[in-house]
Amino acid sequence: MKKKRIVVALGGNALGNTPAQQIQAVRKASEAIADLAKQGHEIIIGHGNGPQVGIINSAMSYAAESGPKIPTMPFAECGAMSQGFIGYHLQQALNQELLRRRISRTVVSVVTQVLVDPEDPAFREYTKPIGQFYTREQARRMEQESGYRFMEDAGRGWRRVVPSPQPQRIVELPAIRRMVQSGLLVIAVGGGGIPVVEGADGLQGIDAVIDKDRSCARLALELKADILMILTAVDYVCIHFGKPDQKSLTSLSCQEARAYLDQGEFAKGSMAPKVEACLDFVEHLPGRMAVITSLEKAGAALQEGTGTRIGSGSFCQAEPEPLYPQDYVIRLDRAY
Amino acid sequence: MKKKRIVVALGGNALGNTPAQQIQAVRKASEAIADLAKQGHEIIIGHGNGPQVGIINSAMSYAAESGPKIPTMPFAECGAMSQGFIGYHLQQALNQELLRRRISRTVVSVVTQVLVDPEDPAFREYTKPIGQFYTREQARRMEQESGYRFMEDAGRGWRRVVPSPQPQRIVELPAIRRMVQSGLLVIAVGGGGIPVVEGADGLQGIDAVIDKDRSCARLALELKADILMILTAVDYVCIHFGKPDQKSLTSLSCQEARAYLDQGEFAKGSMAPKVEACLDFVEHLPGRMAVITSLEKAGAALQEGTGTRIGSGSFCQAEPEPLYPQDYVIRLDRAY
Repeated sequence: MKKKRIVVALGGNALGNTPAQQIQAVRKASEAIADLAKQGHEIIIGHGNGPQVGIINSAMSYAAESGPKIPTMPFAECGAMSQGFIGYHLQQALNQELLRRRISRTVVSVVTQVLVDPEDPAFREYTKPIGQFYTREQARRMEQESGYRFMEDAGRGWRRVVPSPQPQRIVELPAIRRMVQSGLLVIAVGGGGIPVVEGADGLQGIDAVIDKDRSCARLALELKADILMILTAVDYVCIHFGKPDQKSLTSLSCQEARAYLDQGEFAKGSMAPKVEACLDFVEHLPGRMAVITSLEKAGAALQEGTGTRIGSGSFCQAEPEPLYPQDYVIRLDRAY
Repeated sequence: MKKKRIVVALGGNALGNTPAQQIQAVRKASEAIADLAKQGHEIIIGHGNGPQVGIINSAMSYAAESGPKIPTMPFAECGAMSQGFIGYHLQQALNQELLRRRISRTVVSVVTQVLVDPEDPAFREYTKPIGQFYTREQARRMEQESGYRFMEDAGRGWRRVVPSPQPQRIVELPAIRRMVQSGLLVIAVGGGGIPVVEGADGLQGIDAVIDKDRSCARLALELKADILMILTAVDYVCIHFGKPDQKSLTSLSCQEARAYLDQGEFAKGSMAPKVEACLDFVEHLPGRMAVITSLEKAGAALQEGTGTRIGSGSFCQAEPEPLYPQDYVIRLDRAY
């Protein structure tokens, strides 16, 4: 197969719940991604941060409430911290796996802000639970004191909820584009990106969570990627999921995908947004393809066709589209 | 003055103690740095993280000990978080200030690891206090349980202490170099960098703090910078500091600087490591110059000669040295 530009979306749940677990988990993820790099592809990595930003936000909130002189840390800032935390482990592990395969590329994580629209309908319905569990009384008190919103979460207690708006623009895109073009393996839009809105004094953080698959689709679009690869817990997208007639799908046209979405075949907050992110990518860039599969099957997805392919594109097209007009091409491909 | 490549080291104490203070502080810092960018210079920013990593580490430790299911967060991981936290605010503010001045450059923060030597003598004398204050009993207990070391800190209580080894190698240097060459304004080695050592399985974090001025000097050396600019609380380096015959220095040769260091003119842990970092830079790269001044005087330092200049270099030399041989030059200078 020819060299492709691939945006890989890595699930936050695949990164573990403690620093030690995360080190183990990113090692596994890095092996899969380094195998893709070994196949010669350009790779850009996005990742989730659900458990990690949850831990950071819980710890910061708990310490600010009852602890020693700790200031309140807004949610956007916690997201920025999670980008540093996950990016550090991921680039450490990935650099190591590339070294093992004698691939001379450098991995680097960039702090990424993603602009959202304050008029996004998502700001009217708070859907995304974050951080720790509270009792009903604690939740009520905080609701009054801070204006936060809370929701009962599956019998486990009350949790703060925030909106999940659509990504509008990746603020650091010009930097990411240059980095990709100069041969770097870039980790970006961690946790879907730090959500920001335009204020009187420029950008400012806002309490929200941007779906990481949507941000990765946006990144793939902007970078004119050939493939958007969403790595999750299952090898294939299924219909009739969990029923006796469950069926794995190897390919889905855009029409089929839309029809299944309409029929409610894909779980909300789980498979549905992933399929939607894929459609967003392949419907806007002709000839492109999206793949949903598991971390373990990432290499096989390209070489043996494992996983669910969405879109009309094929893996046999030409070289990746240049990010710049020809006379801007960066000649840094040789090792230095 | 001709275009220079400048590494700016920004003090962590200049960034405030709460997220709201930090937003205000980075705005002020960004104005100074954007003014330098407006003068046409290439800028690479390093920054401290003392108060910030202290807050994060205190909150994480406190929550892990007494809070709700929070895992213990090693110090290196807290450093990575602080890079995300500070980098986010800094790049947000700096992008805004560049926009105001109609400078079309993109600022981006990179998660940076810095290799240290496990045989560094610093690992035998723990000198750097971090995080929150404990009682003597708490400190004793943690000393026994976790192997941490504690020290009584100026009558305010007991604090954990970690070593402060020398930076050996900036792991993400190849990426930083490419980013600088492609016209990006890069924020790197935050907090001196995440300290790592070589282990059996590649790099791994270690409990330590690397002096940010030393890491910035190392970065300036590796990037063949023209100027290392250390921004601190004072406009000038002084001798007889705090005495009736206190004297501000406008320039210092390497010999003079070494002599004053030997005479103990510069405070340990404060001005002395800054002067040493400057010497490390100017003694290794001929014709270069280091400047120590305040944030407010950063622009004036280059245009009017404010601040203390160290080294034999002048501000009138030629264009910055290319980072790559001529045929590798990146032609991305035009806006796109």
